[in-house]
Amino acid sequence: MNFKIRAATKEDCKDISRMIMELAVYEKMSDQVKISHEELERDGFCQNPFFECLVAEVPEEHKSNEGFTVVGYAFYFYTYSTWEGRSVYLEDLYVMQEFRGNGIGKGLLSKVAEVGKQKQCVRLQLSVLDWNTTSRDFYAAKGAQDLTASEGWHFIRFDGQNLDNLANEACKD
Amino acid sequence: MNFKIRAATKEDCKDISRMIMELAVYEKMSDQVKISHEELERDGFCQNPFFECLVAEVPEEHKSNEGFTVVGYAFYFYTYSTWEGRSVYLEDLYVMQEFRGNGIGKGLLSKVAEVGKQKQCVRLQLSVLDWNTTSRDFYAAKGAQDLTASEGWHFIRFDGQNLDNLANEACKD
Repeated sequence: MNFKIRAATKEDCKDISRMIMELAVYEKMSDQVKISHEELERDGFCQNPFFECLVAEVPEEHKSNEGFTVVGYAFYFYTYSTWEGRSVYLEDLYVMQEFRGNGIGKGLLSKVAEVGKQKQCVRLQLSVLDWNTTSRDFYAAKGAQDLTASEGWHFIRFDGQNLDNLANEACKD
Repeated sequence: MNFKIRAATKEDCKDISRMIMELAVYEKMSDQVKISHEELERDGFCQNPFFECLVAEVPEEHKSNEGFTVVGYAFYFYTYSTWEGRSVYLEDLYVMQEFRGNGIGKGLLSKVAEVGKQKQCVRLQLSVLDWNTTSRDFYAAKGAQDLTASEGWHFIRFDGQNLDNLANEACKD
């Protein structure tokens, strides 16, 4: 199937927002999605954007059952390793179910790697859920290391009241 | 003990670089450190910096055995959740051994939370090694969740030749 990968524009945020929800449903965590397309427009298309995004688009004649032509996205930003320097982090990689098996996911991933290399990034990182063997196998087949399995890295998060409490302790000083 | 937490300047990069190595030795991974203080100066103190850093400083009369007054740092950057928006990621939090137990680590962590809140971040995230129970307990006591344990998130990385291969596939398209 013919498809094109291009940098997202502000006008794509509604499509991206729709697909963020589709991906969260697949990950069985849709109750955690709080973001709106307005926030994506504000945070991704400002002076110092918080993220960048690529979209995959198919021609009008191949549009989805529901009429969409933007059928996949790769959402990423730049991070930094104090051991090795510039890195790129792939937050989401998603292709709508009816368009899978056409190389779109692979195309999006490769393009993020290329963009990262152009920015002198030495790593491309991401996270997957342990039960998601389809994704884990996809990345492993391309040579990715699972650092949680090999080195024992765990993800830690503060949010909500715990984050407020931490921040408030600083204010008191 | 008296100490001050302040934003790092370009002139602190030699101290930060020294402490990055000290932390890596503690984490038993010092062979992975490739970064120089020149790279930190270039990437952290440019137009759109890749990271921000706080340092902890003690008065001259409390300097370390080796004569250092910059005795801890918190190295962080902004990331983005497609479910909840702006986040801050704490890459490194470190206090020199002889200065531990004085609330410096806690002070640095709280200040990062405060800076994150000011930027409207809804999460503060970080990673720890599974054997590092001192750190895991420190964060857990402040209410952090271990998402690897509770939800099964694994860290995945492409680097070196595998990253090059991915990027080269995009060039061919």
